[in-house]
Amino acid sequence: MIRKQSDYRIDERPEMRSGNGTVRIEHLFEPGTELKAPTRLCAKLYLEPGVSIGFHRHENEEEIFVIVKGQGEIDDNGTSRQVAAGDSVLTGNGAGHAVKNTGSETLEILAVISKYAE
Amino acid sequence: MIRKQSDYRIDERPEMRSGNGTVRIEHLFEPGTELKAPTRLCAKLYLEPGVSIGFHRHENEEEIFVIVKGQGEIDDNGTSRQVAAGDSVLTGNGAGHAVKNTGSETLEILAVISKYAE
Repeated sequence: MIRKQSDYRIDERPEMRSGNGTVRIEHLFEPGTELKAPTRLCAKLYLEPGVSIGFHRHENEEEIFVIVKGQGEIDDNGTSRQVAAGDSVLTGNGAGHAVKNTGSETLEILAVISKYAE
Repeated sequence: MIRKQSDYRIDERPEMRSGNGTVRIEHLFEPGTELKAPTRLCAKLYLEPGVSIGFHRHENEEEIFVIVKGQGEIDDNGTSRQVAAGDSVLTGNGAGHAVKNTGSETLEILAVISKYAE
């Protein structure tokens, strides 16, 4: 199944996880119907400069962030670090993360959340 | 866990799935050790112009391709279609796919393979 970027389902999330501003989300494929694996989210996130997603934990699942464009600051379970296009972040097993666009261009992140086997 | 692009494990795969040329693979995180979910591959694929990955099927798992840069032709279970940066492809449940870089710049693809629950 091929999905063109113009056909993604769009979500706008203000103050996501108590963060600042509004995160734009493009859902690439839909969990449960299109995705048969235990994948809870497969999406591209767009954060304009200054926009953030607040700190939150992932229990019994893990999230992969791949920074596609821009730069930002990741709180990686309590430790802050700068990331830029090409870098990636793995958060799971009860750990938490937060992200903020600290650059001057849009921060684009590919996000995949996979649930652990029961 | 944050991984900088310069720290990815690199793989070079000549004639991948009987395709042409050599595919460069950056492994973002390692299945089974770093990744606890049933994810079999989390990688960025680089195909130079003319390079391809031959047709192959995914049984009891699914693969998500996100085209990060460039353009190419996808054989989506028997139907060929052009894709470009921003588009995505889902292949699973016994279906197959192939990909070829038909453009003039490097084709970059984010690939995640997730196994179905048993």
